[in-house]
Amino acid sequence: MTDTPSERTEQAEHAGQAEHAEQGAGAVGAPSRRSVLGWGGAGLALGAAAAGGAVAVARSDDDPQPAAAGAGAAVAFHGAHQAGIATPVQDRLHFAAFDVRTDDRAVFVQLLKDWTEAARRLTAGQAVGEGAYGGPVEAPPDDTGEALGLKPSRLTLTIGFGPSLFEKFDLADRRPEALIDLPKFAGDNLDRDRSGGDLCVQACADDPQVAVHAIRNLARIGFGKVVIRWSQLGFGKTSSTTPDAQTPRNLMGFKDGTRNIAGTETDRLKKFVWVGETDTDDDSAWMTGGSYLVARRIRMNIETWDRTSLQEQEDVFGRDKGEGAPVGRAKERDEPFLKAMKPDAHVRLAHPDTNAGATLLRRGYSFTDGTDGLGRLDAGLFFLAYQRDVRKGFVPVQRSLAADSLNEYIQHVGSAVFAIPPGVRDADDWWGRALFSEEA
Amino acid sequence: MTDTPSERTEQAEHAGQAEHAEQGAGAVGAPSRRSVLGWGGAGLALGAAAAGGAVAVARSDDDPQPAAAGAGAAVAFHGAHQAGIATPVQDRLHFAAFDVRTDDRAVFVQLLKDWTEAARRLTAGQAVGEGAYGGPVEAPPDDTGEALGLKPSRLTLTIGFGPSLFEKFDLADRRPEALIDLPKFAGDNLDRDRSGGDLCVQACADDPQVAVHAIRNLARIGFGKVVIRWSQLGFGKTSSTTPDAQTPRNLMGFKDGTRNIAGTETDRLKKFVWVGETDTDDDSAWMTGGSYLVARRIRMNIETWDRTSLQEQEDVFGRDKGEGAPVGRAKERDEPFLKAMKPDAHVRLAHPDTNAGATLLRRGYSFTDGTDGLGRLDAGLFFLAYQRDVRKGFVPVQRSLAADSLNEYIQHVGSAVFAIPPGVRDADDWWGRALFSEEA
Ligand code: HEM
Ligand code: HEM
Repeated sequence: MTDTPSERTEQAEHAGQAEHAEQGAGAVGAPSRRSVLGWGGAGLALGAAAAGGAVAVARSDDDPQPAAAGAGAAVAFHGAHQAGIATPVQDRLHFAAFDVRTDDRAVFVQLLKDWTEAARRLTAGQAVGEGAYGGPVEAPPDDTGEALGLKPSRLTLTIGFGPSLFEKFDLADRRPEALIDLPKFAGDNLDRDRSGGDLCVQACADDPQVAVHAIRNLARIGFGKVVIRWSQLGFGKTSSTTPDAQTPRNLMGFKDGTRNIAGTETDRLKKFVWVGETDTDDDSAWMTGGSYLVARRIRMNIETWDRTSLQEQEDVFGRDKGEGAPVGRAKERDEPFLKAMKPDAHVRLAHPDTNAGATLLRRGYSFTDGTDGLGRLDAGLFFLAYQRDVRKGFVPVQRSLAADSLNEYIQHVGSAVFAIPPGVRDADDWWGRALFSEEA
Repeated sequence: MTDTPSERTEQAEHAGQAEHAEQGAGAVGAPSRRSVLGWGGAGLALGAAAAGGAVAVARSDDDPQPAAAGAGAAVAFHGAHQAGIATPVQDRLHFAAFDVRTDDRAVFVQLLKDWTEAARRLTAGQAVGEGAYGGPVEAPPDDTGEALGLKPSRLTLTIGFGPSLFEKFDLADRRPEALIDLPKFAGDNLDRDRSGGDLCVQACADDPQVAVHAIRNLARIGFGKVVIRWSQLGFGKTSSTTPDAQTPRNLMGFKDGTRNIAGTETDRLKKFVWVGETDTDDDSAWMTGGSYLVARRIRMNIETWDRTSLQEQEDVFGRDKGEGAPVGRAKERDEPFLKAMKPDAHVRLAHPDTNAGATLLRRGYSFTDGTDGLGRLDAGLFFLAYQRDVRKGFVPVQRSLAADSLNEYIQHVGSAVFAIPPGVRDADDWWGRALFSEEA
């Protein structure tokens, strides 16, 4: 039952080289987490087979709501773009920013290769390590084990490189111009300990245990080479990237993600999300097919908001709370009529028409991290936005939001920006190869 | 579409007076969150009807795995015991401890009544407030709205009274003897800010947004009267109370909850969980049908554990990691043979045979609350255990665990104990009535 390397490779090749592989072709029949024979013997086979039998593949082209349809499915890891961006948004998130603790380039490159290999297995629902559980009991297991018996749960792992990484390993001239250090925005109240990072990994899955397990195992593989700088659990998705699905509500009670780029809108993805060949020069060509991620931890002043009138709440967004329709319109999906909104309404200020067309793919999650010592919930929105160029995406929109009436109820407390390299093409490829290869 | 009081009352009466109502009879056809007409008008009806149509009722007597079978179902609120104890364990938790900020008994009693009314609605999948969304837009909505359109998701709300509550409102002589202040245990490293509390509410649901929404709305209703002292999100259940379900794994990778009291074991529940008539005197008679809850936030030293050999990990628990079988046995459900385990194995020390029969109903959840500033995950087990008498339940077991080899890898950082009153019987009853009624 233990997975052999060849079995894995074959499956990885199945997993598809197609454009947007993360939405379409999948690892057909990807096995569940079954590399467990060394742990307790034959008894395992039963559970593993039962779990394995239920694994299906998410195919968003056939199925507009794979989240509901194939709850346990695997999302293909290989493709032109990384999965976890245009992929239909999963229910839960564990996001980690890492700092690099080695200055040895070869060591770091090996880590990227090891991480890629682990990510390939984890996203297919397999344990980390090849047949390691059949190994000696005197050694620590290669996989921490808490996801054993769980389905792939549409796990995606998406890596990003922060500006500070390019100061290391002599990479300064490979840093893309679009990867700016974010300017200070009006109202920013950033906590250094929740900001920045040399690297990030976004783990999204429909089962939080699967997402937490993935980050933890990557951290473990990176022990001594990288260290987690900060991490964030997102318990519920806000934005969705599947237009037909029911739009989730954020912690302010409003539908969030109505006007988002859908994972199926190939043209808009190309225009606003994926870095194209014309965006790069020789030094930054490694980013073609990639994207840029802005992450902001936005605390909501829940208690004040909850004492605000319905009228004021609806004015703040420029949409009604029940249906989610723009002011003066009847239905959620109706085109917003900006002039009917207050000048300081969030939707009016965030809308592309107000920002010379600037458009983001949002993929944020709600968080609740206990209380703040003053009896208030430490809750809000962990805002994640993908874009082709930060200077033409998040920056103008966030500048425009300086006038937002929403600002009375929120505070940006964490911030980070990452270059998201293109997808891993096949079983020989690895995260960041084009950036780190000597040949490149 | 707005729920009328009579509709609600009727449903509440349907919800059953039966013993163990939370496992058996349910609110037949409990409507989904649909009290929303005032928000945006007719557009809502569609979503509400769609959601409402999918609502089913959890019946654990017919169905050993209602968690899987009726994922959106409602659990009956009324019954001899509170739901959320013997109820099949839901996937997610939001737990809050509150301190009382009023010394006016009448105000506090009114709050308990308001909370009960809200809990009745929330657990049935309805919004807080009766027709409030049809009310004036100049007022804050009665419900914060983020669970609108979501199913009941088997939400249970379970209230508890901490020792400190009995120092208030002249209740000292009503405090049951079994509700002791927990002694200091070996290795305790308790954080005051994560310990104690006059009151607690345990919200369990299969959708975390539903659990978070419930606690937040109770906090909001309590504004100015109670304040959240601490709260804990549990992203994944550990213990299960359904013997046929797949046992969940904790963050140490081991199956957790194998030998637990199942919600269907009426005799053992009576013997070990529910407070009986013979346990109480006139002053504490209000606790008959109730239980006692011990909550411990247990941090795991994940990074050290992950570098420990499989052999050592299995020795620590006295069970194997893959199958979960006790040392020397083949299957998870085989009877543990304690003498085959190391003397300091967790299962050996926690087992009833080692502790004069002491037996707990465990209902803990895994947590991950970011990092601790040293790059280590702040993760572990939020341990919840219900019992008939704390002095014969948690205390002897935890004393026995002073010798536990597991202690090298964990630390108890939060602690609280609560008296859990019996269930709310019907639409006229309220949380704590027998304790607070002048007539009692
Ligand atoms: C806690 C903070 C925030 C909350 C609660 C929030 C909530 C919302 C809501 C309810 C909508 C309307 C529904 C929709 O189309 O998605 C919306 C739209 C939008 N938001 Fe936000 N948002 C927040 C922060 C931000 C930030 C920081 C940005 C970017 C800098 C942003 C960019 C947008 C954009 C681009 C739209 C769509 C506008 C349109 O095309 O109509 N939001 N937001
Ligand atoms: C992070 C801390 C803990 C972890 C990881 C843990 C884990 C486990 C595991 C894996 C088992 C074996 C499977 C089972 O029967 O559930 C177990 C059993 C048990 N644990 Fe714990 N446990 C922890 C803390 C505690 C505490 C604080 C108590 C009570 C004071 C406790 C009481 C028990 C009991 C009563 C059993 C069942 C023993 C038997 O009847 O065989 N555990 N625990």
